[in-house]
Amino acid sequence: MKKKLLFVFILLFPFFLKAEDGSRLWLRAGQDASATVVANKQSPLIATAMEELQHQWRGGKVHLTLRSEKALRNLLGKDGFRITGHTAKEVHIQASGETGLLYGAYHLLRLQETRQLPDELNITESPAYDLRLLNHWDNLNGTIERGYAGHSLWKWEELPHTLSPRYKQYARANASIGINGAVLNNVNASPDILRTEYLGKVKAIAEVFRPYGMKVYLSVNFASPKVIGGLPDADPSNPEVQTWWKHKVKEIYALIPDFGGFLVKANSEGQPGPQDYGRSHAEGANMLAGALKPFGGVVMWRAFVYAPDSDDRAKQAYAEFIPFDGRFRENVIIQIKNGPVDFQPREPFNPLFGALQSTPSMIEFQVTQEYLGQSNHLVYLAPLFKETLDSDTYIKGEGSTVAKITGGALYPQMLSAIAGVANIGEDTNWCGHHFAQANWYAFGRLAWDYRLSSEEIAEEWLKMTFTTDARFIVPVRDMMIESREAVVNYMMPLGLHHLFAEGHHYGPAPWYDAPGRPDWRSVYYHQATPEAIGFDRTTNGSDAVSQYNSPLKERYNDIETCPEVFLLWFHRVPWDYRMKSGKTFWDELCYAYDAGVTQVRNFQKLWDRMEPYVDTSRFKEVQSKLKIQARDAVWWKDACLLYFQSFSQRPIPYEIERPVYELEDLKKIKLDMKHHN
Amino acid sequence: MKKKLLFVFILLFPFFLKAEDGSRLWLRAGQDASATVVANKQSPLIATAMEELQHQWRGGKVHLTLRSEKALRNLLGKDGFRITGHTAKEVHIQASGETGLLYGAYHLLRLQETRQLPDELNITESPAYDLRLLNHWDNLNGTIERGYAGHSLWKWEELPHTLSPRYKQYARANASIGINGAVLNNVNASPDILRTEYLGKVKAIAEVFRPYGMKVYLSVNFASPKVIGGLPDADPSNPEVQTWWKHKVKEIYALIPDFGGFLVKANSEGQPGPQDYGRSHAEGANMLAGALKPFGGVVMWRAFVYAPDSDDRAKQAYAEFIPFDGRFRENVIIQIKNGPVDFQPREPFNPLFGALQSTPSMIEFQVTQEYLGQSNHLVYLAPLFKETLDSDTYIKGEGSTVAKITGGALYPQMLSAIAGVANIGEDTNWCGHHFAQANWYAFGRLAWDYRLSSEEIAEEWLKMTFTTDARFIVPVRDMMIESREAVVNYMMPLGLHHLFAEGHHYGPAPWYDAPGRPDWRSVYYHQATPEAIGFDRTTNGSDAVSQYNSPLKERYNDIETCPEVFLLWFHRVPWDYRMKSGKTFWDELCYAYDAGVTQVRNFQKLWDRMEPYVDTSRFKEVQSKLKIQARDAVWWKDACLLYFQSFSQRPIPYEIERPVYELEDLKKIKLDMKHHN
Repeated sequence: MKKKLLFVFILLFPFFLKAEDGSRLWLRAGQDASATVVANKQSPLIATAMEELQHQWRGGKVHLTLRSEKALRNLLGKDGFRITGHTAKEVHIQASGETGLLYGAYHLLRLQETRQLPDELNITESPAYDLRLLNHWDNLNGTIERGYAGHSLWKWEELPHTLSPRYKQYARANASIGINGAVLNNVNASPDILRTEYLGKVKAIAEVFRPYGMKVYLSVNFASPKVIGGLPDADPSNPEVQTWWKHKVKEIYALIPDFGGFLVKANSEGQPGPQDYGRSHAEGANMLAGALKPFGGVVMWRAFVYAPDSDDRAKQAYAEFIPFDGRFRENVIIQIKNGPVDFQPREPFNPLFGALQSTPSMIEFQVTQEYLGQSNHLVYLAPLFKETLDSDTYIKGEGSTVAKITGGALYPQMLSAIAGVANIGEDTNWCGHHFAQANWYAFGRLAWDYRLSSEEIAEEWLKMTFTTDARFIVPVRDMMIESREAVVNYMMPLGLHHLFAEGHHYGPAPWYDAPGRPDWRSVYYHQATPEAIGFDRTTNGSDAVSQYNSPLKERYNDIETCPEVFLLWFHRVPWDYRMKSGKTFWDELCYAYDAGVTQVRNFQKLWDRMEPYVDTSRFKEVQSKLKIQARDAVWWKDACLLYFQSFSQRPIPYEIERPVYELEDLKKIKLDMKHHN
Repeated sequence: MKKKLLFVFILLFPFFLKAEDGSRLWLRAGQDASATVVANKQSPLIATAMEELQHQWRGGKVHLTLRSEKALRNLLGKDGFRITGHTAKEVHIQASGETGLLYGAYHLLRLQETRQLPDELNITESPAYDLRLLNHWDNLNGTIERGYAGHSLWKWEELPHTLSPRYKQYARANASIGINGAVLNNVNASPDILRTEYLGKVKAIAEVFRPYGMKVYLSVNFASPKVIGGLPDADPSNPEVQTWWKHKVKEIYALIPDFGGFLVKANSEGQPGPQDYGRSHAEGANMLAGALKPFGGVVMWRAFVYAPDSDDRAKQAYAEFIPFDGRFRENVIIQIKNGPVDFQPREPFNPLFGALQSTPSMIEFQVTQEYLGQSNHLVYLAPLFKETLDSDTYIKGEGSTVAKITGGALYPQMLSAIAGVANIGEDTNWCGHHFAQANWYAFGRLAWDYRLSSEEIAEEWLKMTFTTDARFIVPVRDMMIESREAVVNYMMPLGLHHLFAEGHHYGPAPWYDAPGRPDWRSVYYHQATPEAIGFDRTTNGSDAVSQYNSPLKERYNDIETCPEVFLLWFHRVPWDYRMKSGKTFWDELCYAYDAGVTQVRNFQKLWDRMEPYVDTSRFKEVQSKLKIQARDAVWWKDACLLYFQSFSQRPIPYEIERPVYELEDLKKIKLDMKHHN
């Protein structure tokens, strides 16, 4: 008896030891089930689905059925599935593609783990986007640009011979939420990634991913033919360059038959591109697309371009890409950041969405919290993602949302796609902050179904990640939902944007006005003077409003109808301007910052009450991060209010908790945060 | 015309320039009056009184009359005065001593500046204490022990040839509130002060002080005969030693005929003393008293003695001095700190008060805020001073207050005296914090009349220092009154004491348990365990309670009747002990710390509303200090609650704002604060 107990203990001990360090993400279901699972086909991918069900499913026998009927394929697509039957007796998962069976299996298990399983099953699901991708801004030296969870997962030095067990765990986590591809390397791409040596390493990763339905993609440096190919230039009209790319693509597909394609950041922030040779974005993208086309690969060409000498950075992507609308090959898709500037806590949607009518467009979100407190602040991003996806462009009348446009429901496009810049690193808990896992999760779930509410996704994630106890779920879900407004409040409320300290983008520096590119300076964005504050993007100003369709253009153009959350984005607002609340603008701004501080303090109170429902280590780690967030919120509030007060020359309303820092001291803070990993 | 204006401007400019930097203290009355003042005697001291009135008095003619009637002398003493007449017509100030005329003049001017002048004058005042002294802990190298307002005022290197204008300003400020003496040097005294070279410098200072009624005193090192006299020892029974002191005293009085006497810290914290030779405090003090007696000098012998090997530091002064009661010469006075440990934010009164029945005793307060946030925290000390002065010892039945005992009203004693450890340095505003001036002021006013309320003194000081506008006076006075409870709350509520970081005594270190003297460690004082917290000084513990008279002894001894403000001073209290509020002790402790933080934040709100009534520079300087105080209050709260929580193992009540720091981080803070000046 004693011996047997000891044996069980030894078996379980490593499991318990690492149990609550966050390493298991939302995949914490017991692995001790022994379900009966049968399938009408065997393959590595179907074997994944069967294995997951066998170890975790606690209901009746599961039949996985791959079906070839055209009607079903039309309905479900490659990745969709249908689940029917009776939970306790017989469950049928049917699909047209193997990946459909895999996603069906994960869906069934999710319903089980979140206590949402009905007795009778009648579920049909298919994803909103064809390509649901993570973009890793991982460098080949192991660092990650804007990564806050340790160094890169990809151990290039060890590859291809040594495979970290985390590659498989990563693929499994992505598959469980429907993510079906990853761009492995930074958009500021090293040409080395295309060297044969590295392609062998990429192949090894692709082979780990394949049984989970995950494809690999690569960011490519446009100058690669020159840098590693030894050609005199990288001009897309140079036949040698074209040939080099064709050979390189062929080499890739010989190694990785299901390779996804290229992501390209060209002529942006110093990266090489076709404009170096007087060629257009279209010419550059089309050349690459031509090389990839025979193999089914895609080119994701980023629209994140802006030059320091133009008038309004927010207008430039639109101005640069609209003239080429319709001139891209069909396997080119323009990858557009959600907002027109750069992943700010709040931006209006990027006006390129909808305006590109004859060119496929996809949306790029930032899951990593570059501008939202990085891995220190609890900020649940589903409300941010949904705010853009649900934005109505009015391009084809009311209801022309960004989601419908990018999902291909409004214009026909060969492919629909969505990308999220990953927040994943080698930290034990993957994302640095336990709650940052929720943003990876939410990105995947919304890429599958953007109609899901932020609340539903939060509940799913909380139930699988912590506990199904409603005394925990309800308040913590509400905190997550509120967290995005909190960060907007204590960082940049009422349309303020890009007040960050240079370089690290963590702390506040609304005073930032150093030499260098004007469009990298805070003062460029807020333009505070003793009279007013804000960036005039109306028809009297930069006219960025005219990149939006009616009635948005008129709504944004008029200070009285412009949503107050975007007020300083579009308008210069006098300090005494009367807000809808009846307060002056200055007072409203003060109250907003203060509200942000109070919100974070309330998160602390709420979290501390949750101690009985959470394991000690995760409880303490989140508690500790909330302390940092609470301190940072005060830092932001004081920095911004004291700085703007030097223009407004008005008292901070006396009911509000007073600043505790000196502006001059805050200006001296220099964080050494060049690399977080 | 233009020329004339320019002339006026030039005349006034230096005045305006330094007008509101705090340098003028509470002496900001316009100097442009031209009152008629006559006196029935001329002397340098009377000239001071006349000059002050001539330049500032805006009423009728003032007659200064020195009178020799014995009845008047009995009534008023040397320093008292009577003011009669009609403000607008004729004012008569009469006194038995020249200093009485001076104090009468300042009193009249104070009534004028605080808008309290009646038409008909009928005022009689005489001071509560004969000697009203500041103790400067100034070292001869210019540093100040526990000084937070810059280096020493006394420029020993320049003296006696160069006289800083601040010596006179200092003497005038003291005279204006009745302070009539200063011990110039640190109680941890350098023997060098008694060298002939230094005595010449002291003489120069004494001559500046004399027209303001201020005498000089010196702290002496008991080993002086050995160190600077070349004798083999400093044994008080050694005739050579006795002779050395007699000669030294004679030398002093030849230079400074009105020299006040010696202050001695002997056999305390490493200082030499009579016990080094097996002699008692009485033998040591009496030897010095014998040397001083022929010249009318006094010996102030400090009772601040404690040894690391005894059981309870709080008991030791009593235990050491009571056996010698009645064995001191009549010109010896025992100088006793207000509390039995060391100038904590709150202590019960020192049980030596009243217990020494046949030996004169005087009280020593600390005006400098060694343990109360130094020159960063706004803490008005009048309520602390009065709390001790008003404490009833019950030694001769109810009403036997510390004030009456030390004032000589209960036992006859040749002299009564009170001392305050000065908070004055060479900072432009004298005290580091503008509001710290109020503590110098309040000490002087209470030394004159301990029946004045803290509120009255605060109002006087505020009116003279800032403005007489009631919209300022009332709220700021209330803030001052509350400030002492605030510091107790956020530092050491409910009887906690000495939780300070080692050395600098600024920040919290309740965890301090390093090697060294146990009675210098925080854990010695709070004794927290998982069961309880507090120092058992009951009859079951160290029995310190028995040093107090009935009914205090019984009241303090019983946890149910012990005032809660002293609870942990006298008792070990279980964490779940039920307080009068109905809360557990742990919860009460948490709420107290939190209340302290809230109080300081409310001070900030209040002060910011005062901006219209205060000049910009002082407004901003106080505002800036309050920010530090607000940050420090959070630091204290987090440090103490998180540390004590590691024993109590109870949650901080969830309504309370949560900690924002990590205990481990706070433990790492090492302030480099050995010298503040």
